[in-house]
Amino acid sequence: MPLDLIAFDADDTLWHTEHLYADAQAQFRGLLAPYVAAETLNGHLFEVEMRNLRYFGYGVKGFTLSMIETAIELTDGRVAGTDIQRIIDLAKAMLTADIKLLDEVEPTVAALAQTHRLMIITKGDLFDQETKVARSGLAGYFRHVEIVSDKNRDTYAALLERHSVAPQRFLMVGNSLRSDVLPVAVLGAHAVYVPYAVTWAHETVADHEAAGLGYHELARLGQLPALIAQLEGSA
Amino acid sequence: MPLDLIAFDADDTLWHTEHLYADAQAQFRGLLAPYVAAETLNGHLFEVEMRNLRYFGYGVKGFTLSMIETAIELTDGRVAGTDIQRIIDLAKAMLTADIKLLDEVEPTVAALAQTHRLMIITKGDLFDQETKVARSGLAGYFRHVEIVSDKNRDTYAALLERHSVAPQRFLMVGNSLRSDVLPVAVLGAHAVYVPYAVTWAHETVADHEAAGLGYHELARLGQLPALIAQLEGSA
Repeated sequence: MPLDLIAFDADDTLWHTEHLYADAQAQFRGLLAPYVAAETLNGHLFEVEMRNLRYFGYGVKGFTLSMIETAIELTDGRVAGTDIQRIIDLAKAMLTADIKLLDEVEPTVAALAQTHRLMIITKGDLFDQETKVARSGLAGYFRHVEIVSDKNRDTYAALLERHSVAPQRFLMVGNSLRSDVLPVAVLGAHAVYVPYAVTWAHETVADHEAAGLGYHELARLGQLPALIAQLEGSA
Repeated sequence: MPLDLIAFDADDTLWHTEHLYADAQAQFRGLLAPYVAAETLNGHLFEVEMRNLRYFGYGVKGFTLSMIETAIELTDGRVAGTDIQRIIDLAKAMLTADIKLLDEVEPTVAALAQTHRLMIITKGDLFDQETKVARSGLAGYFRHVEIVSDKNRDTYAALLERHSVAPQRFLMVGNSLRSDVLPVAVLGAHAVYVPYAVTWAHETVADHEAAGLGYHELARLGQLPALIAQLEGSA
């Protein structure tokens, strides 16, 4: 059956993002090295991020506020104002960093755009994600860009309704089982998992959750057109 | 001509928001009183906010990062970590504050929802705006909720295209000439200005910019159904 709509996650599916977070955390550890051991810091930052999701949602700005809160907590308020400014400067650097596309992304997306309606579905800060799409050079290939606060079954169901697409004619590609693959698979749509080299702890799903749910796994995005041809040829 | 789509701004059009920013700034002034005079503080905060728009866009999280940056700058880095934590706590309070609807909003929106397709168009942090819509109790009246990073002519043109609505059949209501009224009027759509008691400096437009552009002004949202009946009756 032909596909009506092919959607891509953006961060670490179309372009590299993980290194920005990893670099920011490395610099954050450096800043706080006089006060705190690195092991303590990473665990505590993750805890603070999770605790703050209900206030800030996903994205660089919430991540930054959580870094600041972590720094204050772990130093009992002794962290210097100038160090906190450096944390804010890390955020600004993340928000304006050059966009580095993953291998094979540009030709793959360009080829698929000639035959299919393409969409980006990404979560995070609205303004940040919009400027990344604009700066990526890929905007022209995508008919729609949807920036959502979370990616769950309801989000995808609402998007399919908004765009009048049946689940069987929708395919979603991404690097997160939790956000891009499982909620799409449970709707009966096609889900394609393309793991990124590094996966954020919060995006990891135990194998048994995935068991029994049908999704495809590819090592590289360049393999996607062949998979789509196969899916459209069968049934 | 009948209207196809009636859109409302949210903050300070459907529900009160300005007091949250005013209260946060008052507490911020209190926190920094040992270091800085109040007059210096307000002006500097506004400057920092404007300077940071290109990084953070609109919304509470960016506002908070700008408060922190202002505190650090004006104290030459001497602001205490515990005071910065209190700024973050102000943000959390803003993000979870009870939604207080403006007068006449609920009955007006309920009545219009029976005859027209209604939409919210708001800018700010995606996650924050979504939870406010949900907590407002008004979500059921709106067919669409559009959260955008900025409200300009292009934003509105893209929304009209997305929803397949001609400008003459679109009406937008809001409390900001700059964001809700002028960009809608220049598209040839109907724009209704309902001023809020307080207007943020950045949202103020000089009178001469508005001159010659056709828009309606109402003192209260409750006057909207009569205006709509009049618009639909004529032409």
